[in-house]
Amino acid sequence: LAHYPVVNKRGEIIASAVTNLDIHDMARAVRTYSAKALYIVTPLEDQQQLVKSLIGHWTTGYGADYNPKRCQALETVRIRNNLQQASIDIAQETGSDPQTVVTSARSHLNSISLARFQEILGTGFPCLLVFGTAWGLSPDCIAAADYILKPISGNTDYNHLSVRSAASIILDRLYGRSGEP
Amino acid sequence: LAHYPVVNKRGEIIASAVTNLDIHDMARAVRTYSAKALYIVTPLEDQQQLVKSLIGHWTTGYGADYNPKRCQALETVRIRNNLQQASIDIAQETGSDPQTVVTSARSHLNSISLARFQEILGTGFPCLLVFGTAWGLSPDCIAAADYILKPISGNTDYNHLSVRSAASIILDRLYGRSGEP
Repeated sequence: LAHYPVVNKRGEIIASAVTNLDIHDMARAVRTYSAKALYIVTPLEDQQQLVKSLIGHWTTGYGADYNPKRCQALETVRIRNNLQQASIDIAQETGSDPQTVVTSARSHLNSISLARFQEILGTGFPCLLVFGTAWGLSPDCIAAADYILKPISGNTDYNHLSVRSAASIILDRLYGRSGEP
Repeated sequence: LAHYPVVNKRGEIIASAVTNLDIHDMARAVRTYSAKALYIVTPLEDQQQLVKSLIGHWTTGYGADYNPKRCQALETVRIRNNLQQASIDIAQETGSDPQTVVTSARSHLNSISLARFQEILGTGFPCLLVFGTAWGLSPDCIAAADYILKPISGNTDYNHLSVRSAASIILDRLYGRSGEP
């Protein structure tokens, strides 16, 4: 989940503030669908500290005892300064540079379907799936990615899901269809 | 989305506090998948006022101009004192008492699959799909429902998604599979 480089309503590149519920919801989805880790990407030190305190609260001592399910989810979180650091981390752990797959609420000419993404995941190479906060990832960040994922559509022309919903739905479409329609 | 009757960690029946992001996320999902309305159910007057101010802010004046997509989503929200009022509302609007379908993170012997729920929706009769906040709907509320929906499972034994994620995924499984895996 990238808080930088993202754009604001006017298209200016900003570093957005962290939203606690993004971390809880996405960590639980990551844990439910066995993704390997949730990277919270922000270069802002005070925001990194906020995320650290949140994780610390729920993964140690009283918080971990009080709600062990929250602990199990938040254990998947890693805080990094930028997307490059997340990629390096994955490369060191797996021995392969990850493919970066970015999401966008807008359509792009060369975007790929979830079916194609599933094929790419099927090759066994690691992937870094990137969601932007605020008004979405910066154009440069999108252009630099290996793949752009097609936006999720429902059955209307409205496609403005929250990042929490979008991430959950994408993981469910990829990994959650064991026999259930 | 029911804030009453729900249970706390100790199983006691409580009225929970409203979480703003629940309303935003669920209203956006409702709008994306063309559900008819999002009922926010709470008997607490101060909580109803909070929801009214939130909706007022984004559906009128500056807020509506600033982010019209938020306005379109929040226009689907209706505040009611209890689930019965929501049912009466639906009956008056459609001419039929709705079937109530409750969700639960636990398995119940007589729970139905999403495929069965889809068949029920296919009959054209209205349905009220109920999500509980806090530690879930009260046992009496679950027992009184027409149907209990099976919990969502991913591909692990961890099924502790947020209510925001669960609602989004269920709507997507029901209405969002137009050609996309």
